[in-house]
Amino acid sequence: MFESVTVIGSGRVGSAVAARLRERGVRVAPDGDLAVICVPDDAIAEAARGISVGPWIAHVSGATPLTALDPHRRRFSLHPLQTFTRARGPEQLDGAWGAVTAEGDEARSAGLWLAEALGVHPFELDDASRPLYHAGAAIASNYLVTLHAVASDLFRAAGAPPEALVPLMERTIANGFQLTGPIARGDWSTVDRHREVLSSTDYAGLYDALAEATRP
Amino acid sequence: MFESVTVIGSGRVGSAVAARLRERGVRVAPDGDLAVICVPDDAIAEAARGISVGPWIAHVSGATPLTALDPHRRRFSLHPLQTFTRARGPEQLDGAWGAVTAEGDEARSAGLWLAEALGVHPFELDDASRPLYHAGAAIASNYLVTLHAVASDLFRAAGAPPEALVPLMERTIANGFQLTGPIARGDWSTVDRHREVLSSTDYAGLYDALAEATRP
Repeated sequence: MFESVTVIGSGRVGSAVAARLRERGVRVAPDGDLAVICVPDDAIAEAARGISVGPWIAHVSGATPLTALDPHRRRFSLHPLQTFTRARGPEQLDGAWGAVTAEGDEARSAGLWLAEALGVHPFELDDASRPLYHAGAAIASNYLVTLHAVASDLFRAAGAPPEALVPLMERTIANGFQLTGPIARGDWSTVDRHREVLSSTDYAGLYDALAEATRP
Repeated sequence: MFESVTVIGSGRVGSAVAARLRERGVRVAPDGDLAVICVPDDAIAEAARGISVGPWIAHVSGATPLTALDPHRRRFSLHPLQTFTRARGPEQLDGAWGAVTAEGDEARSAGLWLAEALGVHPFELDDASRPLYHAGAAIASNYLVTLHAVASDLFRAAGAPPEALVPLMERTIANGFQLTGPIARGDWSTVDRHREVLSSTDYAGLYDALAEATRP
């Protein structure tokens, strides 16, 4: 569908996107048939306004509405649902899903083309549903980092090695998120002991909120 | 050190422990030189009192103090830091760490022997530090299940496929828990949009507690 793509932004996502397109034989150039904006969310609208109306335009943000691409009408969004690092290349797109948001059939086809070119599994996402979707993604990824940091803190305080948490967390995912442990067993005296020992730390409120949201 | 071991309890942990010992050529029998109690936490003390004082005795609980093994004195605890499922066998011990709690050199050697026999990386843990340690483990594993359930709920509400969360969460671990996303970028308007859209759900308090505990 597109023979050349302009990638705007060379951060973690922009670098992976440009490298993947090149790998797939798509010409990455300043005058592409499609401009893919890979800049921080609050810079998308300005970047879009700086591009002459005509070619297709897209952004890769999970949280930003399509109106950020005004005044362009040939537009869509593709959010690769992944956490990116500069330490990896385009292969970090492999296995990831991608949210395509489009306002019509032609834009949807354009979004699916980009998903295919990048190698992500596409799904469609309504523009209005993005904040809910993005909150879910942040909870799953960013707050997983938080859980690990909190658990590591407690392990250090207990004299246990934080690296021991990694195989536990990996297996929790590999086991399909089966709940084990005190709440699954209905062992409330252990939960109360956790609360007691956390009462003197910064994590008492967090523990309670998590316990409250956990359904055995 | 031990030629035969009695495994008491045939739940998820007891089954894996017995199978691993047999794999390693240790005789698993009712009259073992070491009795390993693999029953729910609140049944450990009764199980221990039911065994005649003499042979070594151990439990595999992360949260339970050694005094639960009274009146035995030749005692220790080895907690395999892993989440277990009946769908897997003894191989689920591979790669896991194990907390050894012991009151003296001989008991420590006994604990290290069991760790070695089970194939877990041992580390020593003070009896008094167990509640803190176990709270950390529960946060890392059980509340990871909770994060996934909450994020899946939000994805369903947004019309996005919850299975798309799995590669994101796996990569978050594989990338060494690098924080990305709005908090890492200092993008507070996106965080505010998350809060706004979650205000009508059950997860507003949880989101705030997690955001509060997240350090960029």
